Amino acid sequence: MPDHQDFLTLTPLGGYGEIGMNCTIWSTATTSVLVDCGLMFPDDYLLGIDVVIPQFDHILRQKEKVRGIVLTHGHEDHIGALPWLMPWLHVPIYGSRFTMALVEHKLREANLLDRSELVVVEPGQRLALGDMVFNFFPVCHSIIEGFGLGVETPVGRVVHTGDFKLDPNPIDGHSTDLDAFRRFSDEGVQLLLSDSTNIERDGHSLGEREIRDTFDGIFRDATGRVVVTLFSSHIQRIQEVFDIAAKYGRKVAVSGRSLLNNIDIARDLGFMRVPSGVYMDPQDMPALPDNEIVLLVTGSQGEPLSALSRITRGEHRSLAIKEGDTVIMSSRFIPGNARAITRLINDMYRLGAEVYYENFRNIHASGHAYREELRTMLETVRPRFFVPVHGEYRHLVKHCRLAHECGIPQEHTIILEDGDPLTLLPEGIRKEPRINLETVLVDGKGVGDVGSSVLKERQILGGEGMVVVFLVLDEQIWEILHGPDIVSKGFIFEAHYNHVLEDAKCIVLDILENMSPGDLEKLQDRIRSTLRRFFRKVLERDPVVLPVITMV
Amino acid sequence: MPDHQDFLTLTPLGGYGEIGMNCTIWSTATTSVLVDCGLMFPDDYLLGIDVVIPQFDHILRQKEKVRGIVLTHGHEDHIGALPWLMPWLHVPIYGSRFTMALVEHKLREANLLDRSELVVVEPGQRLALGDMVFNFFPVCHSIIEGFGLGVETPVGRVVHTGDFKLDPNPIDGHSTDLDAFRRFSDEGVQLLLSDSTNIERDGHSLGEREIRDTFDGIFRDATGRVVVTLFSSHIQRIQEVFDIAAKYGRKVAVSGRSLLNNIDIARDLGFMRVPSGVYMDPQDMPALPDNEIVLLVTGSQGEPLSALSRITRGEHRSLAIKEGDTVIMSSRFIPGNARAITRLINDMYRLGAEVYYENFRNIHASGHAYREELRTMLETVRPRFFVPVHGEYRHLVKHCRLAHECGIPQEHTIILEDGDPLTLLPEGIRKEPRINLETVLVDGKGVGDVGSSVLKERQILGGEGMVVVFLVLDEQIWEILHGPDIVSKGFIFEAHYNHVLEDAKCIVLDILENMSPGDLEKLQDRIRSTLRRFFRKVLERDPVVLPVITMV
Repeated sequence: MPDHQDFLTLTPLGGYGEIGMNCTIWSTATTSVLVDCGLMFPDDYLLGIDVVIPQFDHILRQKEKVRGIVLTHGHEDHIGALPWLMPWLHVPIYGSRFTMALVEHKLREANLLDRSELVVVEPGQRLALGDMVFNFFPVCHSIIEGFGLGVETPVGRVVHTGDFKLDPNPIDGHSTDLDAFRRFSDEGVQLLLSDSTNIERDGHSLGEREIRDTFDGIFRDATGRVVVTLFSSHIQRIQEVFDIAAKYGRKVAVSGRSLLNNIDIARDLGFMRVPSGVYMDPQDMPALPDNEIVLLVTGSQGEPLSALSRITRGEHRSLAIKEGDTVIMSSRFIPGNARAITRLINDMYRLGAEVYYENFRNIHASGHAYREELRTMLETVRPRFFVPVHGEYRHLVKHCRLAHECGIPQEHTIILEDGDPLTLLPEGIRKEPRINLETVLVDGKGVGDVGSSVLKERQILGGEGMVVVFLVLDEQIWEILHGPDIVSKGFIFEAHYNHVLEDAKCIVLDILENMSPGDLEKLQDRIRSTLRRFFRKVLERDPVVLPVITMV
Repeated sequence: MPDHQDFLTLTPLGGYGEIGMNCTIWSTATTSVLVDCGLMFPDDYLLGIDVVIPQFDHILRQKEKVRGIVLTHGHEDHIGALPWLMPWLHVPIYGSRFTMALVEHKLREANLLDRSELVVVEPGQRLALGDMVFNFFPVCHSIIEGFGLGVETPVGRVVHTGDFKLDPNPIDGHSTDLDAFRRFSDEGVQLLLSDSTNIERDGHSLGEREIRDTFDGIFRDATGRVVVTLFSSHIQRIQEVFDIAAKYGRKVAVSGRSLLNNIDIARDLGFMRVPSGVYMDPQDMPALPDNEIVLLVTGSQGEPLSALSRITRGEHRSLAIKEGDTVIMSSRFIPGNARAITRLINDMYRLGAEVYYENFRNIHASGHAYREELRTMLETVRPRFFVPVHGEYRHLVKHCRLAHECGIPQEHTIILEDGDPLTLLPEGIRKEPRINLETVLVDGKGVGDVGSSVLKERQILGGEGMVVVFLVLDEQIWEILHGPDIVSKGFIFEAHYNHVLEDAKCIVLDILENMSPGDLEKLQDRIRSTLRRFFRKVLERDPVVLPVITMV
């Protein structure tokens, strides 16, 4: 670490080389600021894990230097890990009005609100935190009130785009303030950090206006009810649904906790204008003809407990999909959810609905800039150094290549992964040795107590099941007082395969007969290994075998 | 079921309303023929299940009528379930030379070859099975030697397209013999069954020639090694790799069992011509300069044990991905595999390779007809009735709509799902009541012994783990002789959370103290429910709790 010298060190705790869990420490000699504090939803192989969060040890070790947490926007992958950090770190949190409202809701639910200081910052405001000054530039994204950051540091200016896109023809001024980026950059930017999510997509992203036109056409032609599902934080698109519904004389009933909640917040803050009489309770629906109804529901990822899944399975209190419904699924399918989503779509077709989804033109627009927009950002900021963020490794590689095309020399583009600190110095840039960083798995209230050995056990339990063998032995002479009994879980239908379990009991008796008393551990080992071999042979399965032997 | 009358009943055992596990019984009054006998790879939620196969009860109940099994082509979703049927059904199997070679290999591995009769049929051949005559039409698909079927039945002609596409400009005559379909149809077709996989894709599928051109361009520009992965039964594309390798003076080393095996079979039968000296052993590679090397490997779906995954993880005997490699992944990403595949791609980029995959233009062509090709088939066959096959429910709906566009009236298009028999009569068509049909889950050697209750247990075990509580009681006075002891698997790190397990023991002691002796089942229930409540409260987890109580 440099001494007696100006520097800025960026320490990525998450979001570099992966999409999700964005979290970076910005440190100077006197000041540290955490930029974003997101979570990640687990991959399928993380059995039973609810969410994944960054390891905070590194920021907690420099507590006294930390001046605040700056949030770029309110998506879960940028704010979701706050409930696990705030109990340990008492610093103000800064962000836009809408972002702060979402954070307030989140921290209230976690009973952490009273000990947190939430500070709203406005676009254009200059926020001094220690020896850094943060400037906030409005950016267009799939959530309202996102910010890009222009940071004045002791070693020069740094720009962080946040998650952004350029919508050249936006609705209601939801656009990226490219001029603000340009003005800040005109004094020279040392380093640019830029969103890499869609670097693999050529050209420009779709504008929200196109989506609105698509919706308008579908609403216009629908003769029955229209059912819309989308990401519940996409306030702008939710507004469009209300507007188009009003245009075609339809009422909107909303179902799903996160949608209701976000609409409440957005209306309270004046970010949504719902035409009077359009927003109604699902309970009142039956009274209206189908062509005056819109259902706005959660569940765009096929989540089994979401409103859309429940109304498709017929498990919703008051709503059900029926013949003549037109369903709009306005979101990207996250790959891990593809099978659940297509199952849901097929089920809706079985019920006689028509479904417009990903494969329909202009039904969804990404919130992240495509290649040519990323080029525009590079050309606007014209940084000396470039670090691609918010992407998987291949995205970072390709974003660096784009930077090279824009004239940034190869040795001035740096790929960082989580745990790779980078130090900006007056004379240049330096990669620091990787810090030891593990992602933290959250399972219920347990934080970090589920690690690879527990996951490995879950994998075997989940794939092969478990067999418990129990017997009671006389301690002196190792005579069986009770058992062996065998209970299995997730292994086989015991009724069908009773003979296998009976054979297993005989094997245990055999083992006992051929062992001299005394070594309990050896007995357990032998039961385990012999039964595993037996099950592999007769069933080609390898369950967890747990021998429970009691001596009395 | 009709009596004293001509009829044809189609009983779909698999592949209708789902993609995979194709299997249909064709029955007349005197004759039954099974068309295809495929398996399906399980969805993620089928924990630990290896493959899914159709329930064969229905065909086995009419054994004496069954004259044979007709296979359209050699993909697993058309032949994969044979090893589970052949032990119970002794009838000849018919298919093309290449299909039969794959079946022979499969049945030999299952030790079923000696009791099976495999009969090769040629295109144009008329095969009489009871009172049906099968005609075989060559179709273009992602495997060589696929057939469509023209069947003369007592109630008229029926056409089954098999899996097909129309490649108007094919390489080496691998094309669909549309003329054969037309000639057969000229005498009038009662019913058409047609592949629905790509009904949602407009226009025409990509031709194999375009893929070859893409490969040629990548090979031409590559300065290091070229690594190719693709579906290992795609003999035609494998041939292209060898041809282009030869053109650019590269040798091809093959790794992966299924590729080696399929290449062997295809060469033996004369379906591949490998230029001499081009095909070599991976062991010999180091001796050659990189720009003379092609690695052809299995693993296009990111399978962790495949060659590509192993050479990327550095776990392969003689091969490893390195800086300068150009990797071609020439296949569609099956949705359930998307995360594994993108992880693999990122890892290859980390090692310095360049990877061309799905997002690269013309890197893969589907083997299934797009919308306009399906239209051509409908217009060629001009059937009276239409049943879409080989698709999820939404595909079947949309394929019926296309048939309506082609002039087939709505009441003549029928959507069948697995278990919905359909009877064709001289005077028309009739849907029969759904038969009771469950898919059969195969886990190791166990067939059908894992059902929904076992899967449910696996799901909980896999997501939450298991806690076993054991104690030994004196039968008379319910005094504890030993225990309570607690062992957990897949639940928590016991070392970190010892206090939770200690508290759990105290809870068990409490329960015992407050119960009068006698009712063992009640004691077990109470331990189970109290501990589950306890774990939910302190950890928000809900493991399987298994009380094991022994009385002595």
